[in-house]
Amino acid sequence: MDYKVERLLVNYKTLEEFKKFKEYGIQELSMMDDLETNIIENDSESPFYGIYFGDKLVARMSLYERKAKFDQYFDPKQDFLELWKLEVLPNYRQKHYGSILVEFAKSFGKPIKTNPRVKSEKFWDKMGFRSVSYDMDRDLGENPLLWTPETIISQ
Amino acid sequence: MDYKVERLLVNYKTLEEFKKFKEYGIQELSMMDDLETNIIENDSESPFYGIYFGDKLVARMSLYERKAKFDQYFDPKQDFLELWKLEVLPNYRQKHYGSILVEFAKSFGKPIKTNPRVKSEKFWDKMGFRSVSYDMDRDLGENPLLWTPETIISQ
Repeated sequence: MDYKVERLLVNYKTLEEFKKFKEYGIQELSMMDDLETNIIENDSESPFYGIYFGDKLVARMSLYERKAKFDQYFDPKQDFLELWKLEVLPNYRQKHYGSILVEFAKSFGKPIKTNPRVKSEKFWDKMGFRSVSYDMDRDLGENPLLWTPETIISQ
Repeated sequence: MDYKVERLLVNYKTLEEFKKFKEYGIQELSMMDDLETNIIENDSESPFYGIYFGDKLVARMSLYERKAKFDQYFDPKQDFLELWKLEVLPNYRQKHYGSILVEFAKSFGKPIKTNPRVKSEKFWDKMGFRSVSYDMDRDLGENPLLWTPETIISQ
């Protein structure tokens, strides 16, 4: 069975679906506020990508492009993607939705940085993400993991 | 009953205690590595503060001073403390250990920024921490909360 990864649009239906996810916070509340006060239009593009099962959003992640000048992770400095809020709803786990989303992120061909939740090391290792050397000034309480496309590794 | 907040020293006993905490990651692993390879001395100061019950570490937080030039949260820019990994072991909750640690952090008289775990809003609100306006470039998946000493608010 094939699953389509979709860019999520900011509208009341999407924001209602977001409430089912554990990592719900100021980002989602701010999107709701921007929609209610017409700061953003209905159906604007969000930084979220997701997988629907029927009309129910069952997995999501957020992706954001960082410019090379803000890069503190890769050498040489380069544009990269920051991935966060990767989450699959409890009843839909073990179906590779998480892997499908991460592979989708990789398909942009840019290095990726993520700061995973605790106890997901095996998943990220399987996806080819590697730990950095911890740097307190940069990382504080983060556990940064990096993925680099092979074309860059082989340089 | 009075509880003493102590600066935690990096040694094998402390690092063993850290394994009981849920937020255990690259920071702790890096401290262990630095100790084993003599990059840091036994009993070096760590960025962690904790509360002991007998000889058992039951609560901890990490605190780190950020210089004004890196400040993206307060206006005007100023030196502030970043607080992370505030955690009380399950059997020791509801005894105000978390509040005691946060009050200790406040006692330095500097503004504090933290990025709390999900579902701790009530605690941080009670401690006087307030949400920022979400800024995706700065905050991504974070839920930043700020506390400011009154002397600064009243300026």
